Amino acid sequence: MEQRISLVTLGVNDLATSKRFYIDGLGWKPAFQNKEIMFFQTGGMVFALFLRDHLAAELKADPGTFGRAAITLAYNVREKSEVNPLIKRAVAAGATILLPAREAPWGGYSGYFADPDGFAWEVAWNPAWRFAPDGSVEFRPNT
Amino acid sequence: MEQRISLVTLGVNDLATSKRFYIDGLGWKPAFQNKEIMFFQTGGMVFALFLRDHLAAELKADPGTFGRAAITLAYNVREKSEVNPLIKRAVAAGATILLPAREAPWGGYSGYFADPDGFAWEVAWNPAWRFAPDGSVEFRPNT
Repeated sequence: MEQRISLVTLGVNDLATSKRFYIDGLGWKPAFQNKEIMFFQTGGMVFALFLRDHLAAELKADPGTFGRAAITLAYNVREKSEVNPLIKRAVAAGATILLPAREAPWGGYSGYFADPDGFAWEVAWNPAWRFAPDGSVEFRPNT
Repeated sequence: MEQRISLVTLGVNDLATSKRFYIDGLGWKPAFQNKEIMFFQTGGMVFALFLRDHLAAELKADPGTFGRAAITLAYNVREKSEVNPLIKRAVAAGATILLPAREAPWGGYSGYFADPDGFAWEVAWNPAWRFAPDGSVEFRPNT
């Protein structure tokens, strides 16, 4: 097995709300969308927003068993000064603040917001990680 | 804002169990680990397993509010024949089957397992996506 994630799929309540947030608000461009799913190319991975009930059906699960996800997604930025404007933009697009940006105990600067379906996103500046020109990150110091 | 995810963090109950599954079972190699978190480099992204209670504390949330995540992660493979052996390996490592592999309505072949904390992973062969030598995927046909 190689070491990667090919696709991250979030179960959402309705795609119109997701579109307003991710497309109209954050400016992401979908690679494909229909009435049940939207796909976004994200680096070497794909990010999908899929109707929650359809996600449950795919897993043959009861959607009523879904709760608050013990998961966070992070969007790392190159400069510390990018953190607050990005969180502000997310809030303007419909996000709620989970934790205002602060000097983090691990040496960076970060805050968290919840997207319209409650999924937690961290916006982080981490000076200890290597940031490539294409936006990919590596768990090792900048050299 | 660029279009990417820098880090996916799953909140787990205990790291010894996570280690048995992801490291001993699936063969993933951590870039870093301590008593509360493990990081894995995954392509241009980082994947983290973080103690659930610490994740809750980070978000200033009550860990009791966490439930089943309406999220799936997918691991795409190059060949259809890789799907079943990989699911079998995951089960041997402690996963439970959520959906046995089947011909998927979207034209590929896939199945789902839950990791020891219940997070859903799909193992998928999708002939409609472009698969790069480094394992990254693109939402567009192979050419």
